[in-house]
Amino acid sequence: MGLVPTMGALHEGHLALVREARRLASFVVVSIFVNPTQFGPNDDFARYPRDLDGDVSKLEAAGASAVFAPSAGAMYGPGEETRVRVGATAAPLCGLFRPGHFEGVATVVAKLFALVGPCVAVFGRKDYQQLAVIRRMAEDLFFPVVVVGHPIVREADGVAMSSRNAYLSPEERGRARVLVEALRAAGRAFEGGERNPAVLQAILRRVLGGEVIEYAEVLRPDLGPFEGAIGDRALLVLACRVGKARLLDNLVVGEEAVP
Amino acid sequence: MGLVPTMGALHEGHLALVREARRLASFVVVSIFVNPTQFGPNDDFARYPRDLDGDVSKLEAAGASAVFAPSAGAMYGPGEETRVRVGATAAPLCGLFRPGHFEGVATVVAKLFALVGPCVAVFGRKDYQQLAVIRRMAEDLFFPVVVVGHPIVREADGVAMSSRNAYLSPEERGRARVLVEALRAAGRAFEGGERNPAVLQAILRRVLGGEVIEYAEVLRPDLGPFEGAIGDRALLVLACRVGKARLLDNLVVGEEAVP
Repeated sequence: MGLVPTMGALHEGHLALVREARRLASFVVVSIFVNPTQFGPNDDFARYPRDLDGDVSKLEAAGASAVFAPSAGAMYGPGEETRVRVGATAAPLCGLFRPGHFEGVATVVAKLFALVGPCVAVFGRKDYQQLAVIRRMAEDLFFPVVVVGHPIVREADGVAMSSRNAYLSPEERGRARVLVEALRAAGRAFEGGERNPAVLQAILRRVLGGEVIEYAEVLRPDLGPFEGAIGDRALLVLACRVGKARLLDNLVVGEEAVP
Repeated sequence: MGLVPTMGALHEGHLALVREARRLASFVVVSIFVNPTQFGPNDDFARYPRDLDGDVSKLEAAGASAVFAPSAGAMYGPGEETRVRVGATAAPLCGLFRPGHFEGVATVVAKLFALVGPCVAVFGRKDYQQLAVIRRMAEDLFFPVVVVGHPIVREADGVAMSSRNAYLSPEERGRARVLVEALRAAGRAFEGGERNPAVLQAILRRVLGGEVIEYAEVLRPDLGPFEGAIGDRALLVLACRVGKARLLDNLVVGEEAVP
């Protein structure tokens, strides 16, 4: 059985995960759960978009076999007090800006794996570090599940699909293009032979310009820092605040085509 | 499938768990793993008794279907960094004296549950708090397993069976009887109508006399403190150091017979 864990407010990116899961498993469960433990007190838990009816219609069309939409009280029952924590993989990047976020993610995904019992689970690569944390957790706790990462699905103008794009005004939606433009500029420099991570990082920051950057890093694909020049591949990874939206994007140069 | 997690150095108490598991499941796996993450730097990891050949013979006679004896490197592979943490249940008693102990226990038992996939797992009640932590973890993470606690198995003189009794000299083995004697004295007082937890605790401490007490508590069976008088049931729970051995014992008065 395949599982696609989501927080609902589904877009084409989620539906691509469902179709990928259906290629890998004949029965695909899509979970829809806005997980409170992965949101901090100043995060957007309350206003996170919710549209269960719309989601179910989209999932049916995309070939999902079942929707699993538990209540918060069922997932976190009275007296519950167990958390799953991943170490170094969860520490940098989003881990620095959202304390406790990945503990909430690892905990709820462990619960979903145990409840649903999938042999394969598909996650989007837009949340690159989240995927790494979940892979680590599943491997370390020996969940009998293959964790599959799916390439980022983008809008026509290159912006990565995200439920949080709904927070953007038309003007902000225009500005949101700087993330993919920064990745393109640094990606083209890499393809032109540039192997100095500091130079690629400077390109990212230059293109991002005046936007509120949480991080704009050039790392090894395993999230470690480069010592010296880049080898075959590098992860370019961004988090920026545009208006009320916190937007993520990334590109593994040397592995993925520049979008 | 039934699972009996052990650290080996098996005694009659363990074998009673195996027989109980066989009553509940037709195929019983016994794991033997001295789990490094549940030992602190000053604990007895290195000298913990190990006797795999002897253990396997005993298990065969007791009706175990299979032994699962993984290596430390297999249970904690390169780069592993995931831990399972239980909150309030793991905080008092042994949690105060062995920082990190229950995180190691919860982590390794979660790994064993995921690897072995039992529908039932049997643990001894001598490690009362450990059983509570494991129940909590299994329930919170939705492992599809029934956690069964088995009554303490005692030597002829009442001392609770423990692999760590092997650390005791003959003289210390004699002194180790004070734990069960303290439980008996307080248990008889409860049966005689005493419902003041402070009075029962004073009896425990008086009988324990000059031994090195880590804790000697009278608590609700859910490990919470009493506010006022005891109702129907109370947990009397002890940890003492006798020579090089750290010994545990407990009794739920109002539920179990005084040993």
